[in-house]
Amino acid sequence: MTPGSTRELGTTSVTAEEIKEFAAKYDPQPFHLDEEAAKHSIFGSLCASGWQTAGLAMRLTVDNMLKKTPSKGSPGLESLKWLKPVYPGDQLTLRHTILEQKAMRKRPDTGLVRSRWEMFNQDGAKVLEMEGWGMFGRREPATPAELAQLDAQRAAS
Amino acid sequence: MTPGSTRELGTTSVTAEEIKEFAAKYDPQPFHLDEEAAKHSIFGSLCASGWQTAGLAMRLTVDNMLKKTPSKGSPGLESLKWLKPVYPGDQLTLRHTILEQKAMRKRPDTGLVRSRWEMFNQDGAKVLEMEGWGMFGRREPATPAELAQLDAQRAAS
Repeated sequence: MTPGSTRELGTTSVTAEEIKEFAAKYDPQPFHLDEEAAKHSIFGSLCASGWQTAGLAMRLTVDNMLKKTPSKGSPGLESLKWLKPVYPGDQLTLRHTILEQKAMRKRPDTGLVRSRWEMFNQDGAKVLEMEGWGMFGRREPATPAELAQLDAQRAAS
Repeated sequence: MTPGSTRELGTTSVTAEEIKEFAAKYDPQPFHLDEEAAKHSIFGSLCASGWQTAGLAMRLTVDNMLKKTPSKGSPGLESLKWLKPVYPGDQLTLRHTILEQKAMRKRPDTGLVRSRWEMFNQDGAKVLEMEGWGMFGRREPATPAELAQLDAQRAAS
């Protein structure tokens, strides 16, 4: 969890059937549901809901990072960018970078880690970028010195 | 699409089966997959993936707003907050507020609208809050005056 460290979290892809199945349930817009309608949209052909793309990134994150950590969920994201459409069969690779970590004032047994996720397709084009926070169990609870530092930072900001 | 206007976009809910089905595919963490494991997590019992909660909000947005508009997708969100867990059977109501609208420099036939989404459970607790942009077809293309104003704003910022 060293700030600045980057690693690859694997590769995934999505089929036309999976795109339509997800869209029917969570994002039933024509360009996610129907090839013919998608041809006439700004995307040019059937593409995945941005929420499904985010879900694919989450799955890689769970399988290749969170499963090995004491993850306690996330309070949210500071940004989420859908930069390019994701089409059936695209080979999607996820890169994860640790940006920052700090203790959590209300829960000394929990640490907060800010990360960036970047997903690229087989052409090297970035399709998704997210930045946000995750909560993790700490091996050792935050020390009084760390908590005092947090309080000082809060008072100064 | 008047800035400041707010409307309710309906109510939805999710079952334990749907929570597990989504999690198995996109977010296989123990507290989204298994009641017993969830009891020992910080959430106290089985709860939905935050990505599924966002998907539920998207579905209400499509059904009760986007279907009636010339929606062209979204470039992304400026924030996404998972404020409370969503449990099976929670009654989730979505509120949508228009924050801002402007022309799109590169596509005079497209407008950008910034919105806030807030989802509340049956106890009135906010479970999800998102802010971000949508792209919409315009009835009339942006006028030269609007595009000149955009350029002036960009030059000043």
